[in-house]
Formats: sequence, structure tokens, C-alpha cells
Amino acid sequence: MNSRLLELRVHGGRLWDSLMTMAEIGATPRGGCNRQAMTDEDKAGRELFIRWCEQAKARVTMDAIGNIFARRDGKAPDSPPVMIGSHLDTQTTGGKFDGVYGVLSGVEILRLLDENAIETDHPIEVVVWTNEEGVRFTPAMMGSGVWSGALDLNEMYRATDRTGVSLESELRRHGCKSRTPARARPVKAAFEVHIEQGPILEAEGKQVGVVTGAQGVCWYDLTIWGKPSHAGPTPMETRRDPVAGLLPLLRLCYDLAAQHAPWARATIGDIQTEPGSRNTVAERALAKIDLRHPEAVVLDQMERELRASVARECKSRRLQGSLEEVWRMPVTDFAPECIQAVRQAVRRLNYSHMNIISGAGHDTVNLASVAPAGMIFVPCEGGVSHNEAESARPEDLEAGANVLLQAVLSMA
Amino acid sequence: MNSRLLELRVHGGRLWDSLMTMAEIGATPRGGCNRQAMTDEDKAGRELFIRWCEQAKARVTMDAIGNIFARRDGKAPDSPPVMIGSHLDTQTTGGKFDGVYGVLSGVEILRLLDENAIETDHPIEVVVWTNEEGVRFTPAMMGSGVWSGALDLNEMYRATDRTGVSLESELRRHGCKSRTPARARPVKAAFEVHIEQGPILEAEGKQVGVVTGAQGVCWYDLTIWGKPSHAGPTPMETRRDPVAGLLPLLRLCYDLAAQHAPWARATIGDIQTEPGSRNTVAERALAKIDLRHPEAVVLDQMERELRASVARECKSRRLQGSLEEVWRMPVTDFAPECIQAVRQAVRRLNYSHMNIISGAGHDTVNLASVAPAGMIFVPCEGGVSHNEAESARPEDLEAGANVLLQAVLSMA
Repeated sequence: MNSRLLELRVHGGRLWDSLMTMAEIGATPRGGCNRQAMTDEDKAGRELFIRWCEQAKARVTMDAIGNIFARRDGKAPDSPPVMIGSHLDTQTTGGKFDGVYGVLSGVEILRLLDENAIETDHPIEVVVWTNEEGVRFTPAMMGSGVWSGALDLNEMYRATDRTGVSLESELRRHGCKSRTPARARPVKAAFEVHIEQGPILEAEGKQVGVVTGAQGVCWYDLTIWGKPSHAGPTPMETRRDPVAGLLPLLRLCYDLAAQHAPWARATIGDIQTEPGSRNTVAERALAKIDLRHPEAVVLDQMERELRASVARECKSRRLQGSLEEVWRMPVTDFAPECIQAVRQAVRRLNYSHMNIISGAGHDTVNLASVAPAGMIFVPCEGGVSHNEAESARPEDLEAGANVLLQAVLSMA
Repeated sequence: MNSRLLELRVHGGRLWDSLMTMAEIGATPRGGCNRQAMTDEDKAGRELFIRWCEQAKARVTMDAIGNIFARRDGKAPDSPPVMIGSHLDTQTTGGKFDGVYGVLSGVEILRLLDENAIETDHPIEVVVWTNEEGVRFTPAMMGSGVWSGALDLNEMYRATDRTGVSLESELRRHGCKSRTPARARPVKAAFEVHIEQGPILEAEGKQVGVVTGAQGVCWYDLTIWGKPSHAGPTPMETRRDPVAGLLPLLRLCYDLAAQHAPWARATIGDIQTEPGSRNTVAERALAKIDLRHPEAVVLDQMERELRASVARECKSRRLQGSLEEVWRMPVTDFAPECIQAVRQAVRRLNYSHMNIISGAGHDTVNLASVAPAGMIFVPCEGGVSHNEAESARPEDLEAGANVLLQAVLSMA
């Protein structure tokens, strides 16, 4: 990279202003945003993005699932682009930064290149991936999932929200269903800058996280069937109580996370019992389990141990058990050249930094299966995310955007 | 008791026929009954009961909460009656025997005394207690609870079902709200025969259980508050996970039951998590706990240990916890003279028998606070109750009714 490019700096104040302007769309009373995918608010946010990109002389197209590509041509127009992507949709009670920061950093880079009349070899595309949050329409990371081939477009079209409205009809209503196939094409490199959504950078006092990969995620439905019986007259030893069987298995999930510390995660966010009567031994107990680890071999081992334990506990307690995998995101290692580009940028810019692994899924994790990809994290206050209180310091956001800029330029 | 009374025997075939006739009202496709309190079906069942009692020349009255009293006068009309009571209402998917058996055994005794022109000293009253099950209108054991002073009549009037209909309006609609106060008056003795609703008599091969008392029951809401956070990026050690805090406390409930075996019971029939998202550490976890033991001192000790553990676990895990007692049924010891009357009857009749403690609540447990009271259990198949599959053998039902008859006559 020549020295002129290295001197470029993101205008931090303007980036912050963009973030605050976007945050007015779908603003919530408690300072967050509610801009769920393909709502009128999401549409308004997308239009603002398009206007800003066009003002920076980028050419905007859309694909069949509404992913937006704002392209700035390079010297060789047919060469594969360097992509900068993230999402504009939010959780129901989401914040101002999750996703939006990555997109608007891309907008800021488009502006900067335009203002400085920088010509890159490769085109640069700033991408808004449709429905990353998966709140209104599941699954999450939908636009990037379809584009990278992990999800089926027609199946996604049929996804409906709670009121029965389909994604396809909403894409149509908003004019976001283009004829351009939502399908991967050659990409030089894909980058995403994002708030960490965890407390590690803040705790370590680092301004930038060089993301080396993403944890594998396994989602299981653990269901135990027993025999409903009366809480009073039924002796403990004759019961077939699915809750009694569930407890040691949930305990084991936490134990497995502890055994594989510090990177393993076990979350049991949803437990249900049926018929759910206080004075009746339950007939069925269900726990929705989320296990994560950055190494596939460890994740597999955790599953094996859990599965063996389900069989053992159910047999000894005369229960029926089932551990069903309902979703899996494979372990992702980002491309060495992208990690290297990020690391060199952060060193040159002299920000404090550390390697970090993404615990959450991101659009760029999907892209990693079809293109060289990398990510940059910046701290967020208290690690809080998916929450109206989500917050980040302007100087950290500026630092991350500058690293993104330099990494992109080094590849473009 | 004179030898003539001892020779009286319940007509088992007629008792069975009555049970099967009553079971046609609100019959369910799977062989059970759905005759919830103060529905049209319950009303039809009550009318059939009244017709049978009047055919046996009993005088029928009702009180302000619809409890029905079918009275057969004794030689001394003003002397306190011997009561035979239970209930006709059922669970949503209830069986043919729970409650009904106790009431129709009383009807059969009225018939028998009438046919044999037996004169007793004390009046005999067969009572149908309103809303024992507490399914449509909570709480359970309502009619007997109001009558014995444990529940407030006007508060019960205001109880509403899921559709917002009040008990009072249903009592009015069915003509079951009499001006007679629902208030205890002097009672010589109160007896109830009931299926065991547990597997003990069947397992021990005994035909009759001499019930010496009822377990105390404590209902708790155990609520743990934590901090919601993202399942991926949040390290295990920084989490404040209410589910992780709940597990050892639920484990403790089962341990306490084991420590105080064989009579202690711990049931956790309902567990809820909020917001209930698989990939978010829960903000709140709630378990509805039912602890039982026949000795108040043990029940208190179980509560103390649980309470101390809630405080300890929550403190060490930086969680907030609350153990709220939502209902308590005190330990009941039945009256020695009633237990004795039952035991002598069963010995004279030469049925196999054992002492037993009721794990469930019954109307006669309420009555024990205002009158000498006792109960008789007979086996039910597999201990199954509150279930359409509820079943009992005709010969056991006949045995229990004969013990009831002799116990009543010995006191009347």
C-alpha cells in the first residue's frame, strides 16, 4: 500500500453522525432501535443508506432476497470486488451499533475514497445483508446465508412472521425482490467491522480485536418424557419424573463448558415443562441448549458426552430421552490473508489490539465459506448488545473503521 | 354396634352401576370424565345425585356455595350428624372414580339403610362438596374450604374461569346459590372413602388403607433473576445465569425428599424461563415447587434448608432469588376415634389393610379442622389418577364402601 493511502483517515465525527441519524429510524423510548427486517422502518433505513451511497457516487443494485450492493468500480472493473458488509436490521429492542456500525463504516469509506479521488484496482462493494437478526423472520443471517448457498431462497421466501406475513410478500411490497440471483460471485476479500457484543476487549483494555475465526455453534432440543402422576400420593421411588432426569443433564452442559474453558459456552435459555402443573409430575421436559466452541473436535466431544449421558440417565430413571440437533454453525477459520491484512493495519495505525474469536454468528461468517473473509471487533460498553442500552465509544468506532479502511485498501 | 348392623353389606353391583351411570355424564372419548365444577355437566351430575338421594328418602338442601347435603334423620333429630362426603366434579381429563366413588358410596348407604329400615341415633348426611378439583375455579377443595372456614365465601364468589365467568354467576345460573350459610355446624364424625391415587396399597397387596392423616403441603414459587446476555460472546465466568443458579436448588429439593424418605415428596412440575430464547442467557427462571411431608417439623426443616440454599447460591452467583410460599396445607392428623372406627370396621370385615397417610388434599382434610374426621382408601390400578385411564376393581370399591358403612354406623 502506498503512503498516500495510509494517510487516509475515517472522519470519526461524520461516522458518529451517520450512526445517530440512522438510529432515529425506529428509535425506541429507551434509546435503542426497533428496525426489524423488512418492516417499514427497515425499508426507511435501507433508503437512507442507498441515498448516502449514491451521494458518494456508488452504483446500487439489489438481489432476489433484498441484499443491497453499493459498488464503486476499480481500475479493472471486472476483477472481483473487496466487500464491506453487515446489516441494518435490529432486534426488537436492539441498539444503535450492532450491524449498523459495519454498514456505515463502509459508507464512510465510500465517501472518503470519493473525496480523495482514490482509485483502487479492485471494485469496492458495501453490502447490506437482509435480515441478519432473524427476529421477525427466522433463521438469522438470512440474506448472507442464501447468498453463500447455506440457505434455500424459496424456503426463505416462505418464512412468515407472527402475523402470517411472508418474507416474499414483504420483499415485494418494499420493492426489494430483484431479479438478480442471490448467489455468490467471485470476491477478492470480505471484511466486516462490528462491536464485540461481549466484554473481553473492554476487560483487556484493547481497542481493536483481530478476529481469527468464529466459534462453532450447536443447537439441541433435549426432550425427556416421563409419566405424569400426582404430586402427593406418588412415592418418590416409583416416579418417572422428567425434571429429575433433566437436572443432571443440564448440569453436565455447564460442566462441559467449564472443562473446556475459557472458550466453550453452554447456554440453556429456554426450559419448558408439560402439562406444567405444580402438583403433577411432568409428562415432558424440554430444554433448548446452545453449545459453542472454536474447535470442531471439542464441540463434537461435548456432544458425544452429552449424548451418552442422556442415554445413561434416561435408562437408569426409566425415562425416554432425545437429543435432537436442530441447527449447527460450523467452526469458521477466517482467511489467513484477511487476518493478516487486519493485523498489519492495526499495527501500522498503532491501536492496542488482541486476537479474538467471534462467539456470535455474523454475515461474514457465512461469507467465509465462499470467499476470503475477515472481521474486526471494537469494544462495546459492558459487553452489552441486543439491548437498547448497547453503547460504544466514538474513538473506538473510529479506530475500527480506520482498521477496516486500511485492510480494505491493502486488498483492493 | 349390634349384630344386625354388622350384617349389612353394600350392594357392590349396584354401587358399580351407579358409578358407570354417573360416568356417562361428561364422558370423554378415552373412557374418562370431564365434569368440571359448575359446568352443565357438573349440574347434570348433581341432579342425578339429588334424584337418587330423594328416592332413598333423604332430604336435600344446599348452601351458599352449592355444597349439597342429603340428610337422613336419626332418632334424635337435633343431634350432630355423621357426614359422608366427597365430590362429583372432575379434572378436565379426569376419571370415573376420584371423588365420585366417595359420594356414591354414601348414596348406596342411604339406600341400604332405607331398604333395611335402619334407625340410627344420629342423622346421616351425604355431602357433595362443590369444586374439589379446582380446575375451572381455583383454589381446589373450595366448597369444603369455605364451609370449614379456611376460605372466604365472597372471595370465592369472585373466582373466574379462563373465559372470565365468575363462580357466583355460575352458582346463580344453576340455582346452586342457596341462602343457607356455608358454615360449619356441629358434626359427630365425618368420613370419606376415596381411591388412593397412589400405588402403595396395590404394591403392598392390601385392599383397604386406614388413613391416619394427611401430609402437609407447601407450595413455593422459586424465582431467580440474572442478567440476560448473548450466548456466544459472553464468557461463562462473567455471566449471571439464573438457570445455572436454579439447578442446584432444584437438585436440593429432590435431595431433601430423599433425606426424609419414604414420606417426603418433592415435585417440580412447572419450570419457566424468560425471555425464553435459546441463544440468550435468561433474565429470569421460575420453578413452581410442591413439598410434602406428614410431619410439620420436617416440612419446616425442608423449607429452612431450601431457603438458606437459595440465599447462598444467589449470593455466590451474583443472582437475585426469592422463595415465596404461595399456599400451605397444614399437616392433618385424623381424629383417633374416627381412625379407630375405620380400623375396627376393617378388622371385623376381615379385609387386608394397612395404615396410610394421604399425600393428596381431600375435602375431609378440610373438615378435620372443625370435626372429628377420618378416611378410607382403596387401591387404584397402577396408582393412576387425575387421568382418563383411572381404574379400580369392583371388589375393592365394595370393600371400601363396606368399611365406610360400618364405620359410619359405629358412630351414628
